[in-house]
Amino acid sequence: MASDSLISPISFSKEACLITILDQRFLPQKEVYRELKSISDVIDAIKSLAVRGAPLLGVTGSYAVCIAINESSDFYHLDKLLELLSASRPTAVNLKWAAQRVRKSLGTIWNKEKLLSQAFKIACEIHSEDEQMCRQIGLASRSVIKDNFSILTICNTGYLATGGQGSAFSCFLENMDKNIQVFAMETRPLLQGARLTMYELRKAKIASHLIADSAAAVTMLKKKINIVITGSDRVASNGDAANKIGTFQIAIASKYHNIPFYIACPTSTFDLHINSGNDIPVEERHPEELLTILGNKYPEYSCYNPAFDVTPAELITGYITEKGILNAKQIKSIV
Amino acid sequence: MASDSLISPISFSKEACLITILDQRFLPQKEVYRELKSISDVIDAIKSLAVRGAPLLGVTGSYAVCIAINESSDFYHLDKLLELLSASRPTAVNLKWAAQRVRKSLGTIWNKEKLLSQAFKIACEIHSEDEQMCRQIGLASRSVIKDNFSILTICNTGYLATGGQGSAFSCFLENMDKNIQVFAMETRPLLQGARLTMYELRKAKIASHLIADSAAAVTMLKKKINIVITGSDRVASNGDAANKIGTFQIAIASKYHNIPFYIACPTSTFDLHINSGNDIPVEERHPEELLTILGNKYPEYSCYNPAFDVTPAELITGYITEKGILNAKQIKSIV
Repeated sequence: MASDSLISPISFSKEACLITILDQRFLPQKEVYRELKSISDVIDAIKSLAVRGAPLLGVTGSYAVCIAINESSDFYHLDKLLELLSASRPTAVNLKWAAQRVRKSLGTIWNKEKLLSQAFKIACEIHSEDEQMCRQIGLASRSVIKDNFSILTICNTGYLATGGQGSAFSCFLENMDKNIQVFAMETRPLLQGARLTMYELRKAKIASHLIADSAAAVTMLKKKINIVITGSDRVASNGDAANKIGTFQIAIASKYHNIPFYIACPTSTFDLHINSGNDIPVEERHPEELLTILGNKYPEYSCYNPAFDVTPAELITGYITEKGILNAKQIKSIV
Repeated sequence: MASDSLISPISFSKEACLITILDQRFLPQKEVYRELKSISDVIDAIKSLAVRGAPLLGVTGSYAVCIAINESSDFYHLDKLLELLSASRPTAVNLKWAAQRVRKSLGTIWNKEKLLSQAFKIACEIHSEDEQMCRQIGLASRSVIKDNFSILTICNTGYLATGGQGSAFSCFLENMDKNIQVFAMETRPLLQGARLTMYELRKAKIASHLIADSAAAVTMLKKKINIVITGSDRVASNGDAANKIGTFQIAIASKYHNIPFYIACPTSTFDLHINSGNDIPVEERHPEELLTILGNKYPEYSCYNPAFDVTPAELITGYITEKGILNAKQIKSIV
């Protein structure tokens, strides 16, 4: 059911031992591809947000182990490089998790060719698992998305954020036969909705409309939004979900309007080590993101710039996962 | 108590029969003044938001009647011009109200000089009343703003939006002795909060912090917001209030957090001819405001760009007016 206008934000050449990424900083203006040949290239691409999205960073990290092996002379050297790699985006747990999973699979191998083969095999597994999960999340959503639904979403949750067809975005793709339309919030301050989600929706030929973040509540009313679906960066065991700043207030507005509010995410997003959203650290980003106003900088201004907020479970109708649609009470038993 | 760092966004020269405005599109970067010599100049300045803010549009509209008289050959012509003028910003009632008040005062005069004198007299009255009302709105708010309050606001409601020291902004000014701090929302797409309110707050030396529009709900929680105060462009007789897009969803979030939500406006903002917010026309603005993304234009994208939304009376704690603080039920009797 998914559109064939696929976007491939990442690929790996085994022969040349290099990652090719779609440099997301130039989207939607230009589709610039960039080759990452060294760990230093990979770290630079991650830090500069040329590649982003927690699941996609996992896939990037797994292929990067091949590059690190190629660049290393021994395991000591390899582990140093992987440490640097993992530190390049400390909040994205997927990056470290994926690199470690590939690293552990290397076991006692000591032939460089065989190490590369093994690392490549596991990286492909991780990539393919991510693709599968994305697809299954989309399929699970078919029971809650009906014909002619208008859907509201925030931030970016598609090909550009995952190793597959996305989380919330996969729900749109797998319901394209139902004449749906999607309203995408701009997602200030970095405009991932305006820049990336609108680009993805249009590539997939899904009817799409951009709105200001402030227009979410009135759009629910005037455009008769039937369902709100967002991704999540981390879900606590009680169901509280961290996601892009703004998610909390659209969840409140959904409740006010009696519109179902769903989080779409793989079960790997659930963190059973934490009890509630109070334990999820919320990253505050650089003031410059807000204090560059129409191109001019005002560093003397004060601002508060949290990158995420936490939506309490009481506002969340359900969690669309690769294991089906869960409610908050099912998280501990099913995940 | 008000700051002496006055900003004068409008003045009228009777001799030259022209309005001089501070062109708000260039703030805070540059203070550019612009002369409006014809009704077409005035309409252009209003439509392009060079001059904006419901009460300031009222003052502009009243001086504009002088320009319209100067430009007309008879009352038929004059009324046509005033119709065009009123239509340039349909949501804000003040523009039409002020122009009509001046128009009605002209009575049976038929000498152009006398017409101009009379119009100028009434326009000055309206301007001066607005100054008085602003002051009184601020004074009325002293009963609801306590020591060390953190206040959230949206858009711009100060000198740049009124003929005096503002509506919501006047409440900040008249409580400067109470160690208050104000969180200003950016107010996409035109950034009146980031550009104008931060500029005014800093000019007035009030502690100020800029937040993304999406951060309002989490700011209420994390920064312990005590009260939300916004302006309004039109209040229906049942208390429903139209204001800048985003006001509705922060009112919903205020209710969720149990934070008092006040509208600060002169009683001229109340439109007793309409029963509810359903009857307030909501202007949709040019798609380009949203579809210019990081400097590039995407006219092929679809967007929904309402400039205002309507907050239902049930979400509004009270109305801070020059006649004191009203609740929705008092509107019909007191206004």
